[in-house]
Amino acid sequence: MKHMVDLVADLGEGFGAYTMGDDEALLDVLTSANIACGFHAGDPRIMDATVRHCVRRGVAVGAHPSFPDLVGFGRRAMELTPDEVRTDTLYQIGALRAFATAHHTRVRHIAPHGRLGNLVATRPDYAEAVADAVGALDPSLVVLAQDGALADAARARGLRVGIVGIADRAYRDDGTLVPRSEPGAVIHDPGEIAERTVRMVTGGVLRTVGGRDLPVECDTVLLHGDTPGAITLAHRIRGELLAAGVRIASLADVLDAKTGVSA
Amino acid sequence: MKHMVDLVADLGEGFGAYTMGDDEALLDVLTSANIACGFHAGDPRIMDATVRHCVRRGVAVGAHPSFPDLVGFGRRAMELTPDEVRTDTLYQIGALRAFATAHHTRVRHIAPHGRLGNLVATRPDYAEAVADAVGALDPSLVVLAQDGALADAARARGLRVGIVGIADRAYRDDGTLVPRSEPGAVIHDPGEIAERTVRMVTGGVLRTVGGRDLPVECDTVLLHGDTPGAITLAHRIRGELLAAGVRIASLADVLDAKTGVSA
Amino acid sequence: MKHMVDLVADLGEGFGAYTMGDDEALLDVLTSANIACGFHAGDPRIMDATVRHCVRRGVAVGAHPSFPDLVGFGRRAMELTPDEVRTDTLYQIGALRAFATAHHTRVRHIAPHGRLGNLVATRPDYAEAVADAVGALDPSLVVLAQDGALADAARARGLRVGIVGIADRAYRDDGTLVPRSEPGAVIHDPGEIAERTVRMVTGGVLRTVGGRDLPVECDTVLLHGDTPGAITLAHRIRGELLAAGVRIASLADVLDAKTGVSA
Amino acid sequence: MKHMVDLVADLGEGFGAYTMGDDEALLDVLTSANIACGFHAGDPRIMDATVRHCVRRGVAVGAHPSFPDLVGFGRRAMELTPDEVRTDTLYQIGALRAFATAHHTRVRHIAPHGRLGNLVATRPDYAEAVADAVGALDPSLVVLAQDGALADAARARGLRVGIVGIADRAYRDDGTLVPRSEPGAVIHDPGEIAERTVRMVTGGVLRTVGGRDLPVECDTVLLHGDTPGAITLAHRIRGELLAAGVRIASLADVLDAKTGVSA
Repeated sequence: MKHMVDLVADLGEGFGAYTMGDDEALLDVLTSANIACGFHAGDPRIMDATVRHCVRRGVAVGAHPSFPDLVGFGRRAMELTPDEVRTDTLYQIGALRAFATAHHTRVRHIAPHGRLGNLVATRPDYAEAVADAVGALDPSLVVLAQDGALADAARARGLRVGIVGIADRAYRDDGTLVPRSEPGAVIHDPGEIAERTVRMVTGGVLRTVGGRDLPVECDTVLLHGDTPGAITLAHRIRGELLAAGVRIASLADVLDAKTGVSA
Repeated sequence: MKHMVDLVADLGEGFGAYTMGDDEALLDVLTSANIACGFHAGDPRIMDATVRHCVRRGVAVGAHPSFPDLVGFGRRAMELTPDEVRTDTLYQIGALRAFATAHHTRVRHIAPHGRLGNLVATRPDYAEAVADAVGALDPSLVVLAQDGALADAARARGLRVGIVGIADRAYRDDGTLVPRSEPGAVIHDPGEIAERTVRMVTGGVLRTVGGRDLPVECDTVLLHGDTPGAITLAHRIRGELLAAGVRIASLADVLDAKTGVSA
Repeated sequence: MKHMVDLVADLGEGFGAYTMGDDEALLDVLTSANIACGFHAGDPRIMDATVRHCVRRGVAVGAHPSFPDLVGFGRRAMELTPDEVRTDTLYQIGALRAFATAHHTRVRHIAPHGRLGNLVATRPDYAEAVADAVGALDPSLVVLAQDGALADAARARGLRVGIVGIADRAYRDDGTLVPRSEPGAVIHDPGEIAERTVRMVTGGVLRTVGGRDLPVECDTVLLHGDTPGAITLAHRIRGELLAAGVRIASLADVLDAKTGVSA
Repeated sequence: MKHMVDLVADLGEGFGAYTMGDDEALLDVLTSANIACGFHAGDPRIMDATVRHCVRRGVAVGAHPSFPDLVGFGRRAMELTPDEVRTDTLYQIGALRAFATAHHTRVRHIAPHGRLGNLVATRPDYAEAVADAVGALDPSLVVLAQDGALADAARARGLRVGIVGIADRAYRDDGTLVPRSEPGAVIHDPGEIAERTVRMVTGGVLRTVGGRDLPVECDTVLLHGDTPGAITLAHRIRGELLAAGVRIASLADVLDAKTGVSA
């Protein structure tokens, strides 16, 4: 069977007069987009334009909800109650759905942003809050997550989960990420990132810092657009995946293929 | 034919730790609610709770979008472009729709708040922006408005319009409201307000400051919950309408009856 | 020597159209006010009016900086860096100082609000961030705190510290507060609160839940204005302190008396 | 007498993770900076860093208050009351003064930003509100303005006014700017802008679109840092002014020289 994978990145992360990343260029590469919903970035004009661009390019639209912290770009932990996480998530997905409907498409997935995205992997209460919001609003939404509490909570509610593969971070032998505070946590060499991505997608493993091959799942590869060289790297990753015989496909097709649904 | 009318008020206008009005008490009286969507008031918890309470009491849920001005409570004009009005409106209705879906109901109408609500009556560009948002998102939404540009723009797009009757404001002979800056602009006597409401609903007229009977439409009566005596007055208005043989009904039923649809 | 104490409460905690507490009534009782600076509550109009009222009533003005979380009223922990705490504190005190200058007075003290206020008692990095801001901006500012990290950091920089006495919370034998999550954490009986306050001020002790007399300092008593019966209780506390021979004085006079400076 | 002029630009207009313009590069050219105060742009970290950089480079610090409209970058008119303009101005200048004090300097001037900056030139009520705020807070602040209502209101209160010269906009024979909506409103040719600037500063005139020489004052030249080629143009303008024998000096020195005060 041919390997399939979705390519996703965070889009629409400007605000008002501010821009962030090169969304136009990224759209050439992606099959899915995590679109900011106004709490850490994004505003109604940017959401509208980003959804419109995604529709034109055939990129699937996803919601990228966050802690309500514009000045902190959603990167700072906030001690919300689970009910605050649930209702903030509903609000943000709902807002994005309006733009999707106006552009004759649908929100296909959700991927919590930044610090909220980290915390839902380890805090079951936050994971359940997000999964409850998705279940109550639209059980057809795919939940993008790394292995962890959110993936578990989503599966427990019968929601589909797309596992996000991250190839530009160093892993320990126990499968945890090397924290950003430690040297070597982030891999910067484009060739190494592209090669690790291909191996992750085709071989199902990532080499750890200890030299072990760690089994990893990957339904979608997380690309970036806001660092120097990011666009070139994104094209390279896409190119090397294609050269390795991988089919770049929508997340829906990737998940259908896994579960034996004929696309 | 028996007269029918809907009773509506602005709800969910607290924010965080702040409360505004006595929503619980008002829900005994209303058939429809204009729910704040976070731009002038309201937050995800308050929106969630307000929709839940409306569902329990059988009160229809409507969106109350505003200029993005929390500190000004949406009461200050902002020079937005029509596209900013359109996208801000989409965002806010979308957010409320998420809570409606989560509580197994739907958003039934939209009523622009405060200064935006004033301006859509007189500015065709803003009126078209709001009507475009509604048409693109959900053409089954009823547009609440006074006679004016928004009502016209909505009808031109085939949207249903509910005319809001205001009995506690003084009218001039030419049908315009006496501005709030002039003495006598607002009627405070509860008996007079109740009597004017009944005449507006059953007789289709309001007495002007010049002593003339002005023909007025009224599909829904706008009640208030945030002034001293407001709840008592709301009950009195409902009581006198019932005593006059008026049927208090949902906005959908009122509009269906007007257009000959069997409820 | 006669006992002296300052009476302080949080003021100006409305926002835009929203009110919080009965500031007018509290001003009859207080000698100092912690004024919200716009991050958890307060806006420029409210800050202006609150400072003006304080000046008219002879109440000393203090800054009440917070985490930047309006919807959470500053009650939710946020994982700020110490530099973010320092700069947010500078910004907020600076804003209040403008209104003080415009009303021909000065900001006399600072008291971190809500969750930030809790954290500066236990986190030395946050405590130092706040003390650094005060030291850089105005070393004549008194730092209001409970015993803990902020009091220590302020004293280490040569800043004056005013210890806030809290009589309506239950203490354990080890001097820590019973957490709000446990029964009996908050004392509600007005007579008991008043009696504990007098004993704290005149006797320097508070009775613990274990029945021990805990030695406590108290330069200023924290009163409240936003709960039912709060104003009556505030008057009662003031009355019983006066009846017990305590002199209600400005914080400056209280601290001067402690250090032997002639007032 | 040698001609003297100050060079000013808007700085610190990023927000959180967002950047705007190349402040570092501009600081090589400027003698004064208009620093955003958090309402249209800027946050406490950016304000702190911008003031620190200004102090290091010997650039005078000024406040750049705005309408409270982050998503609109202060470019949209808001119907504030004069008291709202006055108190918003106090708040913002006060916040910046805290960072100036912490860096052992002072705020030297104020220049209203964006749409507020336009409106204070034509609305006497807004002009008086800003001038009242300055007069109440620090009458030594220089008010930067074009000729118009703010300059008049400031002079009427005995405040010093610095006239901002704008050389990259087209003027009509009657001295008004060609509106941005009309072709030719903005001059883009760097050589033409530099030549017009030199003539404005040394000759006191600007050529209108009608070909007339319009008498203009110019105490400070407004430069930009956020457009392509802006930094190169700023250096060129500075260079051509120096080559024409103009002394680039602080605004204080420019104004002192005009009024015969020995610097």
